[in-house]
This record gives sequence, C-alpha cells and structure tokens, in this order.
Amino acid sequence: MPASPIRKLVPYAERAKREGKKVYHLNIGQPDIETPKQVFDAIRSVNFPVLEYSHSAGIESYRRKLAAYYKRYDIDLNFENILITTGGSEAITFGLMAAVDEGEEVIIPEPFYANYNGFAISGGINIKPITSRIENGFALPSISEFEKLITPKTKAILICNPNNPTGYFYSKEELEQLRDVVLKHDLFLFVDEVYRDFVYDGKKHTSVLNLPGLEKNVVVIDSVSKRFSMCGARIGCLISRNKDIIDTVLKFAQARLSPPTFGQIAGEAALDVPHEYHEQVMNEYVSRRNLMCERMNEIPGVVCPKPGGAFYTIARLPIDDSDRFCQWLLESFSFNNETVMLAPATGFYTTPGLGLDEVRIAYVLRNSEMEKAFACLKVALEQYPGRIEIAKPSAINS
Amino acid sequence: MPASPIRKLVPYAERAKREGKKVYHLNIGQPDIETPKQVFDAIRSVNFPVLEYSHSAGIESYRRKLAAYYKRYDIDLNFENILITTGGSEAITFGLMAAVDEGEEVIIPEPFYANYNGFAISGGINIKPITSRIENGFALPSISEFEKLITPKTKAILICNPNNPTGYFYSKEELEQLRDVVLKHDLFLFVDEVYRDFVYDGKKHTSVLNLPGLEKNVVVIDSVSKRFSMCGARIGCLISRNKDIIDTVLKFAQARLSPPTFGQIAGEAALDVPHEYHEQVMNEYVSRRNLMCERMNEIPGVVCPKPGGAFYTIARLPIDDSDRFCQWLLESFSFNNETVMLAPATGFYTTPGLGLDEVRIAYVLRNSEMEKAFACLKVALEQYPGRIEIAKPSAINS
Repeated sequence: MPASPIRKLVPYAERAKREGKKVYHLNIGQPDIETPKQVFDAIRSVNFPVLEYSHSAGIESYRRKLAAYYKRYDIDLNFENILITTGGSEAITFGLMAAVDEGEEVIIPEPFYANYNGFAISGGINIKPITSRIENGFALPSISEFEKLITPKTKAILICNPNNPTGYFYSKEELEQLRDVVLKHDLFLFVDEVYRDFVYDGKKHTSVLNLPGLEKNVVVIDSVSKRFSMCGARIGCLISRNKDIIDTVLKFAQARLSPPTFGQIAGEAALDVPHEYHEQVMNEYVSRRNLMCERMNEIPGVVCPKPGGAFYTIARLPIDDSDRFCQWLLESFSFNNETVMLAPATGFYTTPGLGLDEVRIAYVLRNSEMEKAFACLKVALEQYPGRIEIAKPSAINS
Repeated sequence: MPASPIRKLVPYAERAKREGKKVYHLNIGQPDIETPKQVFDAIRSVNFPVLEYSHSAGIESYRRKLAAYYKRYDIDLNFENILITTGGSEAITFGLMAAVDEGEEVIIPEPFYANYNGFAISGGINIKPITSRIENGFALPSISEFEKLITPKTKAILICNPNNPTGYFYSKEELEQLRDVVLKHDLFLFVDEVYRDFVYDGKKHTSVLNLPGLEKNVVVIDSVSKRFSMCGARIGCLISRNKDIIDTVLKFAQARLSPPTFGQIAGEAALDVPHEYHEQVMNEYVSRRNLMCERMNEIPGVVCPKPGGAFYTIARLPIDDSDRFCQWLLESFSFNNETVMLAPATGFYTTPGLGLDEVRIAYVLRNSEMEKAFACLKVALEQYPGRIEIAKPSAINS
C-alpha cells in the first residue's frame, strides 16, 4: 500500500514545528469544535464493575436509540438494520467485504476520500474511478459515464454525500439518477453519509435510505466523529435493510468481537445533544466557508468552488505540482514565521496526472486563524518557484 | 465465512433463558473479574475539550509507558516497536496482512482460536493446521511435523502462548525449537501473548521477544482485555523489531485513522495497577482451574488435562458429537432448571472430523457457580442419548 501524499508531508510538518514555525493545519478533518458536554458527562459517570465485550453488533440500547434518532430525519429503520462499528472506517471495510468479492469492482467518483483505497485493498477489491470536475463544482458525472464503466465485475457504486474531499452536496435528482442505474444493473449503492448534518444554504439532505425501491441495494455508512466532534470515540455504524448484507457484516463483526464500549456509551449520550449545539456548529462552519471562499478567490489564479456541505473544498491553484507545492510550504516557506499545511489533491485521484494543480482545504480552524493561514497562502503563491499562470474560468458554482 | 459452532448455539442459549433456565456460561473468555479501579478512575477524570483522533500508532505517552512496562519482564523495546491497535484482533489482522500475501500460508497448531480463521480470510491467507493432541496435553507438535508442511508459500508460524483454547503453556525449549525452524526457513513467528500473565504452578513465561536472533522474524500480539479484565476497551498492540513490518502495519493503521482514545486512556491507567491485583487474579484462576480439573476428572469417561496457563482447557467427553451435545445441553436438558453452555471443540480445528468428542471450557466463573455447572454437566453426561463409552487413558499431563 503506497503512502498517501498527505502522509509523506508529515515529517516536513514536524520538522517545521521543531524549527519554531507555526503551521496552520488545513490539511485534516480534525475539527476544533468542542465535543458536547453530554458526551463527557456520560463517560465521567460510568459505573459498572467489569468492562465487558459488548454485543458484536453494538449495545442494543444504543442501536435502538439510533433507530429513533434516524426517525427524526424521517428515515424508518429497525435497530436490526444498524450495526455499530469501530468508526466509519470499519463500516466501509466490512460493508465492501460483505458485498464485493475479491477481484470485483466498485465505481467511485474521483476525487475521493483517499482511505477508500486502503479499505478496498484489504478486501482485494478494485476501484474504478469516474472523474468529477472542478468546472461544475464536482457535480455527479453523467450517468452515461457510469454506464461506460459498468462491467460484469462491477458490484457497487460508492459516493460520499456531502463529499469529502470536494464538499459537493449531491441533489435528490442526482441520487435518483444513481438509483436508476443501480437498479438497472443490480448493483449495491454505498453512501458515506457521515457529513449528513453539514449541509448549508438552507438545503435539505436526502438520505439514500429514503429512496424507494433501493431496500436491497443500499448500504449507508455513518459515524459520530464529525457530527459531534468526537473522532477519538471511533464509533460509526453500517445501515442496510438487506438482511444478507447485515448477516455477513455481523460475521466480520464477530471475528473482531465488539466495538469499543466507552465509545458506544459516548455515542449513545451524544444522541441527547440538543439541536442548538448543531445549529451553532453549522453557523460556525458557514462563516468559515464563506471566509475561505472570499479569501481564496481574492488570490490571483486561484479557483475555489463554494462547497454545499461537509467542511472541505478542492481548490485550483496556479501551481505546477501540488505535492511539491505543499512540501515547499512546509520546508522552504514562511511568512511571519508561519505557514500552512494543505492536502495535495493528487492523493484523492486514482487517474494518474489529475490533481496536480489542486489542493484540499479543510476549513476546520476558527476565522481568526484562517485569516492568517490565507494571508500566508497568498504570499506563498506569489513566491512559489513553480507558479504557473492559468486563465481563471469565468464562473464556478458560486 | 461460515458461522462458528459456538455462534450457532447462541439462539439456543437465548431461548433457554427465555424459558427461565439458568445457563452457566463456560463457553466464552469474558472474565467476571472486576476491572481495576485505576481504569475507571482515569476514565472518570477525562478533562479535555475535544475528543480528537489520536496518532494512528497510538498515544505516544501510552506507547512509551508500555515500553517501560515490558522492561519489567526484561523485554527491551523502544516505543517505536509498539503500535496500539483496536484489540488484539486488529493487531493479528494487520500483522498477517503486512507479513503474508494473498494466497500464502500460515501454519498454526490446532486446535486454535477460531477467530484466526476470520483474520486470515480477510487477507486471503491460507491456514495450514498442524494437529496437537490431548494425549500429551496439547504440547507443541514435533518440528518434523512442521517441516512436512513448509512449502515455498509458507510465510509464518502462529502460536498462542499460553494457549487459547487448550490452556497449554509452551516451554522455553519448545519456543527455541520454533526459533530454529523459523530461522532455517526464513519465516515469521507470530505469537499471541495476550495470556502472558496467566501462567500457573510457579512457571515463568518466555516471550519470543526475548529469544536472540529473532529480531526480524518475531511479531507479538498483546492486549489489555484479559490481563486487566477490560475486554470492552478494545485495546491491544502489535510489537515487532522488524521495521518493515511496523512501517507496513502503520499504513493499515493510518487507513483506519486511530485506535479508540478512551480505551487508550484506560489502557495507560491500567499499567499503574499494583502487582497485588494480578496476584489475586492468579490465585482466583488457579483455584478455579483446580476445581475444574477435579470435578471434571471425577466424571466417568471425561479426560480433562490440567492447563498450565490462560483460563481454558479442552476436555474429552464420552460423546458422539460435541456440536450436537452442546446444543442438546441448551435445548433439551436441565438439572434443577439449570444447564451449561460449552464451546464445541470442532470450531477450533480445521481438520475435518477432529474435536467431535471435545469441548472447550473457559473457567471464568467463581467456584460456587462452577460447582453447580459441573454438577449439571455430570448429570447431563449420564442422560445424553449420544453418550459413548471410551477408555480413559491412564495419565494425562496431571
């Protein structure tokens, strides 16, 4: 398994910090938002004599409470449709292993979350990328493009909605197009909905669990990590109404015995977090996103689409090579003894050569910090030896 | 992945309980021993604003403290030789995936921990069993037996010491024999040492980490689950001085982001548990083991080896089929409205036909409960329609 471009940068970031440089981390999806009080209250109140394995599918009270939670989104589930996993990561791994055999294929619009590669490799599964484009804000490629890639080996289409790394928010119409192609070719539709609550501008998220006719086809991945800023809990879940999938995933779940008990207690408590917490978080991210788009698009040669959800965007920069640029930022550049760490977009594409002039920005810092980070980036783009001039497209999704 | 014999029994156990029968669980390795106070104290004192991802290799302070902990056992490690995993299960999975390619082989003495099958299947790895025998208490098969199985596809030998499911404690001499064969054929030696502290009768555990010459070959699996009765923490570790293995495992670790933070905090706190806790636990298990062997060997036709470590034994019963017997115990038998749940040994063998007259007993209940459980079992063996008479061997390892 090759090291991802972002991981290759870690030693450079560490060295920069050792040398006293301040590094603004816009490279990772680790929010600085405070974890809700309810989560810590529950953990500080644990009171039982033996820290036992839980049920392999997760603590039943948590699964039942989750089913009730999804009802708030008009998603009708039985607790037996939900298996608690060790993070969304494990849910994707188990789900793919259950639905896709070794040597079979999954179609994923690129750029996509780089760790999908690792999960697929574990199961000997081949990813077939279908390129989405910055010119239309990374909207869903046309269904005819999907159909060109479908072979007898194709078993599933996987999307992340809202999207990491692009921040693109798929519309109900796009999901319905996917539904049609999935039904036509008898495929699974995996949807990573961990950013479901991060949808802006008054839009409403459509879960594929609510598209009629897909009961056998849909596998949804979810997680508490981003929603409640509790990435360290390592609690996610896999949701499907397809009993065969659930039964097979349960076997993998039994082999690893159980998801973490403390994390499940924390996850169950998080379901009691009042709506105000979420609203505050939303307002904060909208404000950060708006600042990011404004500052980024002020920089000559930069194209920064306005993402509709999650807390990422893929921006185009006037550079020759994003891996080189991101390394240069850490190794050779500073402005007021500060610099920025970004994720080269090359790591989110599997088609060679794509992403060279793009970076992923995670807007996970408060605005006062982001102001300084973008000031750094502006100066950096003036000074970078590999700067190239590109024509700015007239209108990009904003 | 087929369901294991023990999991097939779960619905029968659930039904028995619904019908009001008391079921003594001697089937699983979930100890009833109280988790140390220090673990809960640490969890109840957590005080930070954001529950973040930890480092993918685990929290550095925990890794450093673990290295110091192993020094108490005269095992000399750097913290970079240790990667924290989500339970011992993940450590085995990642270790095998790092060391053994798809289609390659691992030799494991059978009976072995049934979940090794699941971990191997995830990586497309083939397990070659080598049968150990109740007649000599499940000692290591002779090295010539190992050599017969070694082919160009063989990449590793895996043992669990002390052993689950047999309770067998491998001697230093046996480990040295394994060292020789591993060096001769350039193999990895995986040793699951999660029961390292559960060694009885004044014997001393030899970690393969202390066998000279094996620095490149040894991968050790460890876990807090049994040692500190904290199975629900889901914290283990993988230890190797082979940098290539550590680097590759780290890539898999990065793909799943991080091990659970609360569990790591609990695991780190457990290292402060005073020695007296461990001594009390040992005394308790020795007393349970002795009771088990006494009661079991009093039953006509039963052969129960005296295990040297862990908290399991594989016993031979005068029965036709252990799957059928264990199901019958739950479905059709009761004594004072009570019954026993045991693990059919068939699930621990991969050679077909083995284990039919054997069960695994986990002596994880207090003696007052075990007395009643063995009284049940005695009556059950009198009444079981599939009882067969076997000659009791004159001496079995006790």
